[in-house]
Amino acid sequence: MSSNSKDWQKLCAERKERRLQSIPKDWLIHAPPESQRNVLNVPETCGLLTGHELDITSTTDVDTLLGKLALGQWSSVEVTTAFYKRAIVAQQLTNCLTEIFVEKALARAKEVDEYFQQTGKTIGPLHGLPISLKDQFCIKGMDTVMGYAGWIGKPAEKDSVLIEILYDLGAVPFVRTNVPQTLLWGETYNHVFGRTTNPYDRYMTPGGSTGGEGALLAMHGSPLGVGTDIGGSVRIPAAFCGLYSLRPSYGRLPYQGCVNSQLGQESISSVLGPMTSSPSGVLRFTKAIIDAKPWNSDPLAVRKPWSRDEYELGEHGNGVGMCFAIMWDDDIVKPHPPVIRAMEITKAALEAAGHKVINWVPHRHAEIYKNTAQIFFADSGHDFFTDCELSGEPLIQTMSPAENAHELVLDGLPLSRTLVEKPAHLSAYDLWQLHNEKRELRKSYLDHWEATKAITGTGRAVDAIISPVSPHTACPHGCHIHGFYTVLCNNLDLTTSVFPVSFADKDLDKKLPPHEFRNQDDKAVYHLYDSELFHGLPVGLQLIGRTLEEEGVIGMTEVMDKALKAYKAA
Amino acid sequence: MSSNSKDWQKLCAERKERRLQSIPKDWLIHAPPESQRNVLNVPETCGLLTGHELDITSTTDVDTLLGKLALGQWSSVEVTTAFYKRAIVAQQLTNCLTEIFVEKALARAKEVDEYFQQTGKTIGPLHGLPISLKDQFCIKGMDTVMGYAGWIGKPAEKDSVLIEILYDLGAVPFVRTNVPQTLLWGETYNHVFGRTTNPYDRYMTPGGSTGGEGALLAMHGSPLGVGTDIGGSVRIPAAFCGLYSLRPSYGRLPYQGCVNSQLGQESISSVLGPMTSSPSGVLRFTKAIIDAKPWNSDPLAVRKPWSRDEYELGEHGNGVGMCFAIMWDDDIVKPHPPVIRAMEITKAALEAAGHKVINWVPHRHAEIYKNTAQIFFADSGHDFFTDCELSGEPLIQTMSPAENAHELVLDGLPLSRTLVEKPAHLSAYDLWQLHNEKRELRKSYLDHWEATKAITGTGRAVDAIISPVSPHTACPHGCHIHGFYTVLCNNLDLTTSVFPVSFADKDLDKKLPPHEFRNQDDKAVYHLYDSELFHGLPVGLQLIGRTLEEEGVIGMTEVMDKALKAYKAA
Repeated sequence: MSSNSKDWQKLCAERKERRLQSIPKDWLIHAPPESQRNVLNVPETCGLLTGHELDITSTTDVDTLLGKLALGQWSSVEVTTAFYKRAIVAQQLTNCLTEIFVEKALARAKEVDEYFQQTGKTIGPLHGLPISLKDQFCIKGMDTVMGYAGWIGKPAEKDSVLIEILYDLGAVPFVRTNVPQTLLWGETYNHVFGRTTNPYDRYMTPGGSTGGEGALLAMHGSPLGVGTDIGGSVRIPAAFCGLYSLRPSYGRLPYQGCVNSQLGQESISSVLGPMTSSPSGVLRFTKAIIDAKPWNSDPLAVRKPWSRDEYELGEHGNGVGMCFAIMWDDDIVKPHPPVIRAMEITKAALEAAGHKVINWVPHRHAEIYKNTAQIFFADSGHDFFTDCELSGEPLIQTMSPAENAHELVLDGLPLSRTLVEKPAHLSAYDLWQLHNEKRELRKSYLDHWEATKAITGTGRAVDAIISPVSPHTACPHGCHIHGFYTVLCNNLDLTTSVFPVSFADKDLDKKLPPHEFRNQDDKAVYHLYDSELFHGLPVGLQLIGRTLEEEGVIGMTEVMDKALKAYKAA
Repeated sequence: MSSNSKDWQKLCAERKERRLQSIPKDWLIHAPPESQRNVLNVPETCGLLTGHELDITSTTDVDTLLGKLALGQWSSVEVTTAFYKRAIVAQQLTNCLTEIFVEKALARAKEVDEYFQQTGKTIGPLHGLPISLKDQFCIKGMDTVMGYAGWIGKPAEKDSVLIEILYDLGAVPFVRTNVPQTLLWGETYNHVFGRTTNPYDRYMTPGGSTGGEGALLAMHGSPLGVGTDIGGSVRIPAAFCGLYSLRPSYGRLPYQGCVNSQLGQESISSVLGPMTSSPSGVLRFTKAIIDAKPWNSDPLAVRKPWSRDEYELGEHGNGVGMCFAIMWDDDIVKPHPPVIRAMEITKAALEAAGHKVINWVPHRHAEIYKNTAQIFFADSGHDFFTDCELSGEPLIQTMSPAENAHELVLDGLPLSRTLVEKPAHLSAYDLWQLHNEKRELRKSYLDHWEATKAITGTGRAVDAIISPVSPHTACPHGCHIHGFYTVLCNNLDLTTSVFPVSFADKDLDKKLPPHEFRNQDDKAVYHLYDSELFHGLPVGLQLIGRTLEEEGVIGMTEVMDKALKAYKAA
């Protein structure tokens, strides 16, 4: 591999340069120095966007945007241009983009506008809306690098099914966004495009693997982005960047035609989901894609039409007097004070809105964590190594930056890796035994959930679980080690949303005295906390529902969001 | 393995003897000699059943039975006793049963009757109905031998989820039925219970792997049976025994808690489905199970409520003026004359009922066949060998009976086996590549189907495909070699029903002149045909719909069935 190390480095440098060249020259800004950690206000101050463009891009509520587009108050070219300029600002501040294609996107926006002008009608429910995409959704004629040097220069022969559907619905795909090599990291760094930073604090990761979207959306550089999630990859960046998102169940939304890591690994399937700054974006996107009957173009998409009854919470007492359970701790790594406080706020808000809140009892979490890790390493990394060998680039062994790394006192590999110490490449039969174990764990967790009927007082089992997304908010680059809070839902295939609750506060979120550490990750995460360091970062939580319960989870998240807003306003 | 060969043989003999002992002594009949091939009328002539019991058991239409049970016209004890006696007759003629538990079943029937007497209400939509089950559905306290000597004497610790739901719905599980060792055969033979024969002609197989159900149901020894299907295992016996059945999509009905062959192999999932003598049984069973929300007790069951709109064919022009495509030939093995004539009858019946019928163009069938075979042998048989080693019994290498075998001129292994010649045990990574190939094939087939929009004249793609179940009707034991007609639907996960059409007729179904043979299976199947040998055997066909389209497939099968009945009556 070392023989052609110069080749892959050169390849990466050239590719990065080409990305730079794809930015219109007059959209380059005088970026603030690296030492400026929070860059959220730069779009307002840098002078690139007009007042009108700032107005447009401050409107990231998808309902409002779609309303203005559908009434012709704003044209798609106007809206797309405004978000594109802001995305380019975001790129210069956080390194969030991979593919920049201004001409193509604006041509599409123009086409959408012309249709509207000629017919007086919208093309579809996402008419004119610019949408950003993780670097996995192939667009015909364009590379999908997905963090591998060896994938440079291989343009897609056709659009992925999601892109086809987005065009049918009137949307305007306009940028693609950065990912980590392998996609199996909760941060965002690869050899081709480098590291993406968090605009709330560039010392921090935006999370991953859909980290480019996280940074872009936090900067209002896009009204809605689409990511993928196999272990938390839409939820971690959503939480770290103050966004709403949804991890649907396996196959509810169409993945056909995307590139992926470990493509063909169907034991724990990657899924795609939206990230956006309001609940309306999650609803509009998810419903529009399902209403487009993706099962007619993706054989793995579940034939389940959008259910209004489920969305209106027919199975959850119509959303009145529900019973939620809070998972204060996964029993593996204790959350940081800002996350605990966010759960306290949520509990109070739910109770104030007339719901009941009980404690969730963790159930066989260590076994579920181990089963997941064994599945992810079933091929002993053969897939990753194969893709690295294409160019000779090395596999990223750690997300720590080469220099200026924040200190994380971890004695050895993270827990997720030690669960599969020196993994052998499993045989098909061994993999089947992991499926048997997984199915048994899922059955056991389901029975555990159903058994809460006895204590909810609603006659139903717990309506949803509220849980951390991660034991912490966005953390310094290289310090994200514990993914179980999200991985749980991938293994069990539970529909899960993320919603923002609060911000870390140095005065309210004092460091707690040390508890009895359960493992080295728990200890390292405890020591990572510093109330000054984390001050001001957004805190999001998960709402965990049942398998294939997308409508219900979206509906319950809206109830939750209203309760939180009312509670904060009171 | 040979060292304890006497042990496993003794074990099997003892187990078989125990089965005999579980038959009430006065239910033993004077069975006709083996030379009597057709035994369908023996229940009427053997004298065991009363006139009333013969009345009951001639009523195998599930709607009628449930109606009488719900009105209290017949008690569950009456109905269960009648079917049990007839099942025991069937056992003595075709060797179709594994578990016989008269006392337990009648106690359950009594419980159901008492509930009705006390409350005036039914327990649920399957109130009082005796239901037979393939030897995979665990019942607490009872062995589930599933054709392996090594599984004898291991009583289940709990009921499988389907059994739990059947109890909740008021049903009376009353017998379990025979299967082949490994379950991966289209016939029914194992070392423990021996071979099941076809009551239409005992020289013939009832099909497999749900062959015990096929024989039992053809004898009216049960009104409804539940089988499983990973390559045709409910459909082949349904067709060979003149029954209706349904192969639902992966996960639509609850499989949790069943034993299985290659448990954990989730690349092509086994599914469960009903077999019965009228369309009403398929509808009643499927709807009742789905209405019971199996996803609350089986984590792999798809959360998709029963859709009345889909059942009423809202997506298929409300069932009027539909367009069907007939797959006259899978391009691998040409069907026998009785099967071709059944398709001609169906075409004429559909056209007479105002539907359009076009030809289905086979699409990449050889690739799909190979992909399936590679998945089924991904573990190089490790699963089978492991289960054989428990007792030391050998793996069944052929379904040919030891003596009196019908001659099948096959030069070597069947095609399905040569597609994976001397298979290596695949690695997890290699299995993932088969998943990628499978997904690509499914996408290609879906696009092929969708492209028929251009030629149907309905504005929709072809509503369903009509196809053979097998290239032939029930065939002599040991001669079933070609499973692609059914396997196609397992690989692509297409919802598929089977419905009876006609009977082979020596005068109408003359042997055709030889065609250009594509492979040795095609040649062997051609030479197998003999119009005298196959005379009188039932011919069934498949109706193939889309993935997770159970309601639509049931609805279309009813339309088809009415069209056939009207056509035959005209």
